[in-house]
Amino acid sequence: MDNTKITLPDTVSLDDDAGALVIIDQTRLPGELVMLALTKQEEIWEAIKTLRVRGAPAIGVSAAIGLYLAAKEIASAVIDEDEFFSRLKVSADYLASSRPTAVNLFWALDRMYNTALSCAGQGVGNTVKRLLDEALSIREGDIASCRRIGEYGLTLINDGDGILTHCNAGQLAAVRYGTALAPIHLGRERGMNFRVYTDETRPLLQGMRLSATELVANGVDVTIICDNMVSQVMRAGLIRSVLVGADRIAANGDVCNKIGTSGVAILAAHYCIPFYVLAPVSTIDLCSDRGDDIEIEQRSGAEVSDMWFKKRMAPEGATVYNPAFDYTDNGLITALVTDRGIIRPPYRESIAEIIK
Amino acid sequence: MDNTKITLPDTVSLDDDAGALVIIDQTRLPGELVMLALTKQEEIWEAIKTLRVRGAPAIGVSAAIGLYLAAKEIASAVIDEDEFFSRLKVSADYLASSRPTAVNLFWALDRMYNTALSCAGQGVGNTVKRLLDEALSIREGDIASCRRIGEYGLTLINDGDGILTHCNAGQLAAVRYGTALAPIHLGRERGMNFRVYTDETRPLLQGMRLSATELVANGVDVTIICDNMVSQVMRAGLIRSVLVGADRIAANGDVCNKIGTSGVAILAAHYCIPFYVLAPVSTIDLCSDRGDDIEIEQRSGAEVSDMWFKKRMAPEGATVYNPAFDYTDNGLITALVTDRGIIRPPYRESIAEIIK
Repeated sequence: MDNTKITLPDTVSLDDDAGALVIIDQTRLPGELVMLALTKQEEIWEAIKTLRVRGAPAIGVSAAIGLYLAAKEIASAVIDEDEFFSRLKVSADYLASSRPTAVNLFWALDRMYNTALSCAGQGVGNTVKRLLDEALSIREGDIASCRRIGEYGLTLINDGDGILTHCNAGQLAAVRYGTALAPIHLGRERGMNFRVYTDETRPLLQGMRLSATELVANGVDVTIICDNMVSQVMRAGLIRSVLVGADRIAANGDVCNKIGTSGVAILAAHYCIPFYVLAPVSTIDLCSDRGDDIEIEQRSGAEVSDMWFKKRMAPEGATVYNPAFDYTDNGLITALVTDRGIIRPPYRESIAEIIK
Repeated sequence: MDNTKITLPDTVSLDDDAGALVIIDQTRLPGELVMLALTKQEEIWEAIKTLRVRGAPAIGVSAAIGLYLAAKEIASAVIDEDEFFSRLKVSADYLASSRPTAVNLFWALDRMYNTALSCAGQGVGNTVKRLLDEALSIREGDIASCRRIGEYGLTLINDGDGILTHCNAGQLAAVRYGTALAPIHLGRERGMNFRVYTDETRPLLQGMRLSATELVANGVDVTIICDNMVSQVMRAGLIRSVLVGADRIAANGDVCNKIGTSGVAILAAHYCIPFYVLAPVSTIDLCSDRGDDIEIEQRSGAEVSDMWFKKRMAPEGATVYNPAFDYTDNGLITALVTDRGIIRPPYRESIAEIIK
């Protein structure tokens, strides 16, 4: 695949005629651009679990479309409304069990299920129709909110800036545009040029495989670095600001995001470089008071020691620790860039204000 | 190879009968324990260049033995002393060109060449004999100095401590014991137990492949983490102190060491965790006034994007930046642990004092 010639399709779509959630299989990038049409609930669950589709917004949209497809399938066999709701709840709980950290997953499933409940008494067929509208609305809403994040983010950076990002919070993490990378893509549409440094982001290399791919596809100047080179590029004066996404934001502004984010934030503070977190308001979870209240997904050590290699790179007898996320303390964050505007410390107050 | 059952041999030795430098091929670990007997200068140069033998002290000892072998070979064909010295100088310059950053390489070659010069007029045969003694003395000196570093280091840590290390500054980076890991190995000999966290150390995984291997072989509790997980393990309270090595230490105490070291030092400062650099006095280079005066080796981007994978993991069109080392500012270093004792800030004064 020649990445300089492709334009990536939307990351997540619905093919209603085929009854399928259509996604880019991100485990195959950058080598191949493979689209998957997933029709079974087990396939959708597996695609989220194994990161074929990943990124908080993209997971939310996938789950919403997945629950609509579940509703359609249940409705084809069931006309009793109580049984329909009871089976729909089982499907929602099943999809929610695919990953624990990104709040958008639960947010999207709650929104879908509450929509269904609000249709009670109107007949199963009508409910399914409303769920289709709701899933498409969540998807369109994601595109619009990423675009707004991009607009707000563009006010914080300048043409020609060196910008560091971590993991992939780009178009591949959403439907289109992305969150952290939305200002880059939007600026590029307007003829601006940025020099983007992307951490490779071990263990699964989302920065090297995904961010670099979508930025190259969009004609952006990209340099890949290992995660441990961040201090060096900052010290060398190559970075004007840091843009990252979020998997969940607590009520006090602590951010849970891909493992390594908190280290980048501490280095940015050390070198006096602005550190921005870009995410839709749906990523804020007022039920999590502080970062430490958020469950951190622990993944298999083999992702570190074996996954990308033909042979094991660690000696037998060594333990591997593999948390998928970490907490960035609110004091390290210069601003949160949301789809409803840019907010600054003190975050408990500014978050409460924006979420009203 | 079952690492729990092996005891690693010395990293670097001389087989004088075979006219060979004998090394562990570290590019094959942890999968296989392969010993190489290198007889040709080109083989020795290649082994240093491609990191079959690596680590500042081990490179110094390898170069010293290599230059002795060169002297022996030259002497077998040449009896004119001027020609002998002239060809020996060519060999020394050739070995010095294998890698640019670690000062021990130049230190060892200078010491060998000056030893040869001091024998001028005594005949080529005598000079070669003195070079044998000098090379063996450098090797024995390395073992003794690593042991002393271990003794001093042990006064700074406690049985049961959680200790973080970066890259490999262990026995595989020296002849025996190592520098940063010398206190761990020595403590283990005395029945102490540490919980060691080793950064995998991208791109070449010296932490996952080498530090984990030698620590497991020595019965130490080891946990491998990705480089971007350092902040998370520090935040979780798992780390009592950080022990790292050095490739070169400037006159002001700035440390040049494996890429990523400066980031770990900044994180340690943020979390108020002591950050110790362990290295022999021969690693101090008074000709480098500050860290920025030290040349940083830039290595091929393919080490990041391709080397450990069967296929390229980065998209075509993306640049890769791959500096092998970085600078850690002296203000981030709690103490330098040398073979002549522990020194503390202000480093310009304490280094001048210890090196007298």
